[in-house]
Amino acid sequence: MKPRAHSVKAYATPAADAPLAPSTIPRREPGERDVQIEILYCGVCHSDLHFARNEWHFTQYPAVPGHEIVGRVLRAGPRATKFKPGDLVGVGCLVDADLASCPYCKRGLEQFSPTMVMTYGSMDRHLGLPTYGGYSEQIVVDEHFVLRMPPGLDPAAAAPLLCAGITTYSPLRHWRAGPGKKVGVVGLGGLGHLGVKFARAFGAHVVVFTTSPGKREDALRLGAHEVVVPKNPDEMAKHAGSFDLILDCVSADHDVNALLEQLAPDGTVVLVGAPENPLPVAAFGVIMGRKSLAGSPIGGLPETQEMLDFCAAHGIGADIELIRMDQINEAYERMLKSDVKYRFVIDLASLKGA
Amino acid sequence: MKPRAHSVKAYATPAADAPLAPSTIPRREPGERDVQIEILYCGVCHSDLHFARNEWHFTQYPAVPGHEIVGRVLRAGPRATKFKPGDLVGVGCLVDADLASCPYCKRGLEQFSPTMVMTYGSMDRHLGLPTYGGYSEQIVVDEHFVLRMPPGLDPAAAAPLLCAGITTYSPLRHWRAGPGKKVGVVGLGGLGHLGVKFARAFGAHVVVFTTSPGKREDALRLGAHEVVVPKNPDEMAKHAGSFDLILDCVSADHDVNALLEQLAPDGTVVLVGAPENPLPVAAFGVIMGRKSLAGSPIGGLPETQEMLDFCAAHGIGADIELIRMDQINEAYERMLKSDVKYRFVIDLASLKGA
Repeated sequence: MKPRAHSVKAYATPAADAPLAPSTIPRREPGERDVQIEILYCGVCHSDLHFARNEWHFTQYPAVPGHEIVGRVLRAGPRATKFKPGDLVGVGCLVDADLASCPYCKRGLEQFSPTMVMTYGSMDRHLGLPTYGGYSEQIVVDEHFVLRMPPGLDPAAAAPLLCAGITTYSPLRHWRAGPGKKVGVVGLGGLGHLGVKFARAFGAHVVVFTTSPGKREDALRLGAHEVVVPKNPDEMAKHAGSFDLILDCVSADHDVNALLEQLAPDGTVVLVGAPENPLPVAAFGVIMGRKSLAGSPIGGLPETQEMLDFCAAHGIGADIELIRMDQINEAYERMLKSDVKYRFVIDLASLKGA
Repeated sequence: MKPRAHSVKAYATPAADAPLAPSTIPRREPGERDVQIEILYCGVCHSDLHFARNEWHFTQYPAVPGHEIVGRVLRAGPRATKFKPGDLVGVGCLVDADLASCPYCKRGLEQFSPTMVMTYGSMDRHLGLPTYGGYSEQIVVDEHFVLRMPPGLDPAAAAPLLCAGITTYSPLRHWRAGPGKKVGVVGLGGLGHLGVKFARAFGAHVVVFTTSPGKREDALRLGAHEVVVPKNPDEMAKHAGSFDLILDCVSADHDVNALLEQLAPDGTVVLVGAPENPLPVAAFGVIMGRKSLAGSPIGGLPETQEMLDFCAAHGIGADIELIRMDQINEAYERMLKSDVKYRFVIDLASLKGA
């Protein structure tokens, strides 16, 4: 028996070439372990734009993006134990999985689950309908996939932590950025600016690689110790062979071999941005020095909670520009021009009156 | 003051397009910590051919290849403490480095030393002449770079361990091939056949990927539990997402993305073969599942000794075809056709009468 659904306001796009516009979508009535959340803020991730415009070729329409969600619990199912009405909570890129069968979920590595249900663009296992993201009034999520927002976090600035935050926190932790380590962050955007804050907070020596000399001061303000502009050969030569870890946040085509040359032996370049075209990698560039070109997605739920708690303890949030829901199409155009410092966040209060 | 030199027989090539032929080369008189070695056997590595033909564009002529050397100590310098005349010893790809200044050498990671002197194709720091490899009667090497050949190893079959052996042993150890791990070995040649033996000896579940269905039985004989022919989609699909580690021994162009798909989350493809052209890597292929495309060169001296001792304890040697020195040009042609199971080794006794 399918659960009953209720209708909520959202911003949806009906086609790859259509703008986002006011709409309504179904949300399931909360099940036994579900929490129903009033969405307060939703960050605007570049993935939202890829998805809305079907650039990854799996979008079903109507499509509702948004996976950097902060909200307040309205109701909790009878067997939900972690949350109660009024709690401030977060939801990231995942909303469900077959927890009973998934060995990765049992280890807190939900990001690797073959049964993962994404916040948008998957199928809701209960309703049998596509999942709809955070550009909406409410969302209903199994409590396993709901994060506790610790006191002290600004809820708007915390929204981007749910995707951009964990996407940079997780690889920096996994590859042990910390005291005595030299860490590069390539690209100072939504991901990169949080990568800089985390790497600095972990105690690493942080060097930002940016093609925009104008971002030098901002990089230092965000926590970088040094800034390298890759088109200046002297700056690249100065650091060649010296990095333990380079977090590559660039989603445009770029030269990863030049980054591999910046690594010390046993160093790793981790891709968290996803360029559309395959990246040519010179074999000797990884063989000499036993280097790695790795990638990393988001983190699991326990690590995401750890990240939020770390942010609260260290006063870390995204640098954001708060927008109204009806500014989303303009925000997408500005995002394409990198005209945002460093993340748009939608104030969902603006949807109530729409 | 430069040390005196003496002249020894060798096989050298005078130009990229010339065959190897009898010649003489200078070797320095042993210094205080040097050992002078009578070469008994020298393995034939594909690098020898690249070097002889200047395919890496740094060859100085005359050129003497050979870096899989087994021999007997003739003399040891007065401050050499590890070896005495008569000892059976090995020399691999490295013969010197600035040990006093090199932080990697102090940690036994000579393979990362910026001051490394290669067995051929570098400059001898004492003579100020190019280094000449093992296709010769004798070699003089700082004892730090000389390995002890443990009893029980067949010296001819052990020669390829000095390059092909350590090149496969080191990454399998570094990435912890062992019980409970599923390890792929791609390409069954000089490197791959030793990779299979090591991975099996370490207790891993070993799967060979080979484009040659005719090598299936040989792969099983060498220690593989299973064999996959990548052009058979069903065989690839059966193993997709299941490997912890894949040792990629192929030096021809090939599809590493298909190998990355074979990895489980957190898995690693390690290149030990070096295709000439850059390998296109799909970013999502490493991001989803936090996978790595790594590379690995040889190992350091302590690990090379450990490998030789392991081989003696476990009865591991290369499968070789012993040749005379004057068969080397023919052997190169056969190597280019992969017509060798699995390594040529030169019997240097054949050089004495030449």
